[in-house]
Amino acid sequence: MRLLYDKIRQDGKVYPGNILKVDGFLNHQMDIALIEEIGKEFYQRFSTCEVTKILTIEASGIGIACFVAQRFRVPLLFAKKAKTKNLGNDVYVSRVASFTHGNVNDVVVSKDYLSADDKVLIIDDFLANGQALRGLIDIVRQAGATVVGAGTVIEKGFQGGGDALRKEGVRVESLAIIHSMTDDGTIVFRNE
Amino acid sequence: MRLLYDKIRQDGKVYPGNILKVDGFLNHQMDIALIEEIGKEFYQRFSTCEVTKILTIEASGIGIACFVAQRFRVPLLFAKKAKTKNLGNDVYVSRVASFTHGNVNDVVVSKDYLSADDKVLIIDDFLANGQALRGLIDIVRQAGATVVGAGTVIEKGFQGGGDALRKEGVRVESLAIIHSMTDDGTIVFRNE
Repeated sequence: MRLLYDKIRQDGKVYPGNILKVDGFLNHQMDIALIEEIGKEFYQRFSTCEVTKILTIEASGIGIACFVAQRFRVPLLFAKKAKTKNLGNDVYVSRVASFTHGNVNDVVVSKDYLSADDKVLIIDDFLANGQALRGLIDIVRQAGATVVGAGTVIEKGFQGGGDALRKEGVRVESLAIIHSMTDDGTIVFRNE
Repeated sequence: MRLLYDKIRQDGKVYPGNILKVDGFLNHQMDIALIEEIGKEFYQRFSTCEVTKILTIEASGIGIACFVAQRFRVPLLFAKKAKTKNLGNDVYVSRVASFTHGNVNDVVVSKDYLSADDKVLIIDDFLANGQALRGLIDIVRQAGATVVGAGTVIEKGFQGGGDALRKEGVRVESLAIIHSMTDDGTIVFRNE
């Protein structure tokens, strides 16, 4: 997605340790016009999949998933990272290690909101080692529902998480796949 | 907002300890059509305030704030609850106690995204004791920016947080203010 490549090159910042900071437009401050375009793009890519539900994980996936759900006219469900006293025990749970935060969370979804006849499109902002997607896929499968695919905005291709999932037969669509990035800020996209 | 009253009565669940669970349509699964209407309603209430930025706090405020920002055509900024290695040191910080989660968090916003000429509308899903709003107001004021008001979807009027802020001169608009609720599920709204 050309618009996104340009935005990443213009406003993204590369930090040591393979950190790409895009918090000026994607996951702290959000550029609403850009996120609307992202929603439209995911809709076009998955429009024939009879999607019944969008699933993401808190927190930074939610804004993107909202605009995808708006296009599909289906509910958005966001997995929660910790058990709060507002969530009952009747939940699907999966354990997810976060590359960004360097910790491990139990990710939960209420059993009330996923059922075997759901066709679920998973949306997230970043795809690095793929652990978050694997957790969400695990939860959808616990419900007996179908994963129609996963859409992520930025995939760090060199970390291999996306390609491993593709090899296992999951349809993973990323709007920008980073082939390499260096500390001087040079970013090379796959297939560009 | 009548649509919201009906939805809360129909799908909300009251639990002991003044817990109102609305995770079927607001803060776990999101009813996109309803959230769009909520965005429209906040736009109507604050449309003359020359809003330049929407501010919310992760996680469950983000989805609602997205649809508000979409109406205003301004960026959305969400405060983060913990310091991740992706956030620099150049942040505004405020300490917030959460009624829902029973814990205390440092809430941070990057100094890059709030400036003295911003007119900020704060959006959140719930207003109980008002601590989250106070933290966000504190952050806006640290930036020297203006709080034009706060919009919350559900206010637990009996906890007093909203009225205390109103007395201090903050414009707080809540789409449903709960006067009382009892464990048998009876909910009385203020001014109904």
